[in-house]
Amino acid sequence: MEAKTVSYSKTIMSQIVLPEQANPAGNIHGGEIMKMMDNTAYVVARKHCRTNVVTARVDELEFYQPVIVGQLVTCKGQLVFVGRSSMEILVQVEAEDLSSDRPPVVALKAFFTMVALDENCRPVEVPRLILETDEEKKTFDEGRKRYQAYKRKRRMKT
Amino acid sequence: MEAKTVSYSKTIMSQIVLPEQANPAGNIHGGEIMKMMDNTAYVVARKHCRTNVVTARVDELEFYQPVIVGQLVTCKGQLVFVGRSSMEILVQVEAEDLSSDRPPVVALKAFFTMVALDENCRPVEVPRLILETDEEKKTFDEGRKRYQAYKRKRRMKT
Amino acid sequence: MEAKTVSYSKTIMSQIVLPEQANPAGNIHGGEIMKMMDNTAYVVARKHCRTNVVTARVDELEFYQPVIVGQLVTCKGQLVFVGRSSMEILVQVEAEDLSSDRPPVVALKAFFTMVALDENCRPVEVPRLILETDEEKKTFDEGRKRYQAYKRKRRMKT
Amino acid sequence: MEAKTVSYSKTIMSQIVLPEQANPAGNIHGGEIMKMMDNTAYVVARKHCRTNVVTARVDELEFYQPVIVGQLVTCKGQLVFVGRSSMEILVQVEAEDLSSDRPPVVALKAFFTMVALDENCRPVEVPRLILETDEEKKTFDEGRKRYQAYKRKRRMKT
Amino acid sequence: MEAKTVSYSKTIMSQIVLPEQANPAGNIHGGEIMKMMDNTAYVVARKHCRTNVVTARVDELEFYQPVIVGQLVTCKGQLVFVGRSSMEILVQVEAEDLSSDRPPVVALKAFFTMVALDENCRPVEVPRLILETDEEKKTFDEGRKRYQAYKRKRRMKT
Amino acid sequence: MEAKTVSYSKTIMSQIVLPEQANPAGNIHGGEIMKMMDNTAYVVARKHCRTNVVTARVDELEFYQPVIVGQLVTCKGQLVFVGRSSMEILVQVEAEDLSSDRPPVVALKAFFTMVALDENCRPVEVPRLILETDEEKKTFDEGRKRYQAYKRKRRMKT
Repeated sequence: MEAKTVSYSKTIMSQIVLPEQANPAGNIHGGEIMKMMDNTAYVVARKHCRTNVVTARVDELEFYQPVIVGQLVTCKGQLVFVGRSSMEILVQVEAEDLSSDRPPVVALKAFFTMVALDENCRPVEVPRLILETDEEKKTFDEGRKRYQAYKRKRRMKT
Repeated sequence: MEAKTVSYSKTIMSQIVLPEQANPAGNIHGGEIMKMMDNTAYVVARKHCRTNVVTARVDELEFYQPVIVGQLVTCKGQLVFVGRSSMEILVQVEAEDLSSDRPPVVALKAFFTMVALDENCRPVEVPRLILETDEEKKTFDEGRKRYQAYKRKRRMKT
Repeated sequence: MEAKTVSYSKTIMSQIVLPEQANPAGNIHGGEIMKMMDNTAYVVARKHCRTNVVTARVDELEFYQPVIVGQLVTCKGQLVFVGRSSMEILVQVEAEDLSSDRPPVVALKAFFTMVALDENCRPVEVPRLILETDEEKKTFDEGRKRYQAYKRKRRMKT
Repeated sequence: MEAKTVSYSKTIMSQIVLPEQANPAGNIHGGEIMKMMDNTAYVVARKHCRTNVVTARVDELEFYQPVIVGQLVTCKGQLVFVGRSSMEILVQVEAEDLSSDRPPVVALKAFFTMVALDENCRPVEVPRLILETDEEKKTFDEGRKRYQAYKRKRRMKT
Repeated sequence: MEAKTVSYSKTIMSQIVLPEQANPAGNIHGGEIMKMMDNTAYVVARKHCRTNVVTARVDELEFYQPVIVGQLVTCKGQLVFVGRSSMEILVQVEAEDLSSDRPPVVALKAFFTMVALDENCRPVEVPRLILETDEEKKTFDEGRKRYQAYKRKRRMKT
Repeated sequence: MEAKTVSYSKTIMSQIVLPEQANPAGNIHGGEIMKMMDNTAYVVARKHCRTNVVTARVDELEFYQPVIVGQLVTCKGQLVFVGRSSMEILVQVEAEDLSSDRPPVVALKAFFTMVALDENCRPVEVPRLILETDEEKKTFDEGRKRYQAYKRKRRMKT
């Protein structure tokens, strides 16, 4: 199985926020934006491993800015860390008001952990990740620490 | 402002999973279930503080079991920790197959941090939480540790 | 086939009313609330008979109060009457404004008649209903009268 | 206020049943078809009185045939009875398989009672109904009996 | 294969515009109305050929009037031209404000080209069109000119 | 008003096709993909003029390939021609199967004409388009010809 770069699976997905996605306060419903983020993580993971994938965890999902109906929302996803069959993806969400040329602002971010599955829904090995920049190496190490912390915690529970 | 018990705002919300909520693999879309969980956290938080609230963070969202179209999904939310204006809510999701009387299984869980806002969208103080059981005290302490870790991390970034 | 109590299949389902469920006047669309009520009757019926079920009739659906976007809506369903293969379920809908601790108000109610089906979509016998309280006995008798009136009417048409 | 004929407000509304409207068994969700029927009753009532209207009751909603994804569904609504501010509308639903020229079959029917409202949401008088055929006169009388039975029942409860 | 008249497949489909179909400006989303028009063309085409059909082209879709939430929208579709396996359908959309008896206005129109397919998704011959009026003959000729222009253009590209 | 380049407003929007967007045949509903294309044209137009915009026409919308549930769909929009207050945008849709690294295929294309509006919903002048490449100049000329043909046709009708 051939190793792949981070940029190979990097994914950008955009949508206009429609009234059907609003919460009672008139902003985008938190669940709708999580749905968009989850779709982005799904595309990144599938591009990296080309098998079926499922969401296993979401961590440190942070809302910085409310997103408003009519704005253009852009999800940017890229691999941070790759284990044996799990892939951690950072998804950042930018919101942009189209009435001016003010640059988009980062509105949310989260880490999604996706697991690659074979046809029998059992975890399957994924390609290694080629780290090309110092930034990629640094975030990979941070991802590994989170990964090991999850595993430790789970073991403690059982 | 009167303190309130955990059970005062405890919330249970159920839905049948419909085909319109499926992902391409035929299970419930991860984003749809996050939407249900977010709604549950929203109800718990609003009941506790009776002001407007927004989602600020989601942590340790874990998928244990796929949820399938046609199942009954039940979200159970309760307060774990309360800061000055933020409330941490544990949301657990159970999935139940209605064709037998086998008990429901826990399919997901996550911690949602909601922030209480006044009419000008500024954070506002929330009622203290009355802890009645040892379990509530223990999980409150764990919640406080997570809360302090988030704050430390944010300070380090800035 | 073992008889079952009313409380065995009693079901409570809740949702926040979202803007996507509104009618042009800004209240919840009547059809959206009927969809929630139908889901509740479906869960009650399936729990009682554990076979597939279909909606056969809806009677005396009454709207007492408009339900508004942002409210918490709770459907409470319980068996009223059980025939050979049909089950009559009372579904009551409560609406609750989360900005205060005023108790929820009953906004709608209806009787749903569900029919149990086997794998070939033919009506199949359902468990008898164990009536434990005087209220349950009284509403069962009223349900039987409605049931007999429907049957009489249908016979007259043919 | 000028009296109006039954045919003045007669309404026909059609839709193709889409997968997003299915229940877990693959037929149209009962609630989705009730939503279409409610919309039809709404159009009939608004055409007759030209004020705002709300659904007050649904009676004798009967499912004769399952409606399947891909079929053409046609709701036909017409006034049956008119009281002071309430209007009873019969809505019949036909389902049609487009792969052959077999005529459509009646799949559901129900009586919707709509109430006309003024700008302050108070019931307001509606135009009288001009009955042109013997059939219209006969169903008007039946509608009046249902109307009087509802009123009697409500009085007994209070 | 028996030829069929234009009126045999003429189709009228209506809907109330709901808030879930709005764009950020509060009118109906252009895509939602195209979805309704596409459904109407689909029904016309299927009635004419009784095989499966797919949309191949949309031409000269023109918006004359904004359509507003709460209006009754009516799509009227009829065959204009029939080739070997392709059918051109004119779909006109009328919008009607239910608060008065002002007649509906034409809000959009477009030509949809649908292609009949056999079970292997290959184009299949459709019945000839019986032209009964001078208007039908005139628009058929115009349709043939558009059809020949598309074919010429496609040949030039390849 | 400053002229702007084609690349200034070039827009790419992606989505995973979900089951809720399917037609009865299991492909994406034609109307759903037109909705995505319309959103893309809307973003391009708003970026160019920074005022409100409405869709005025869609021309030569051609389906080359069916788009299937689970595929990644990417809409690429860019300005082709700019009149006084109208903007013609070419939207191309690519579909990509994520199970392999086969390149995406072009599945649809269309020309959308958007009109810039002021606060009173009256057409308003838009920035001129800076043409940087020979390809841009050639397609601009073709766009002008289509624009003049529409205007001629409209004049003939009135």
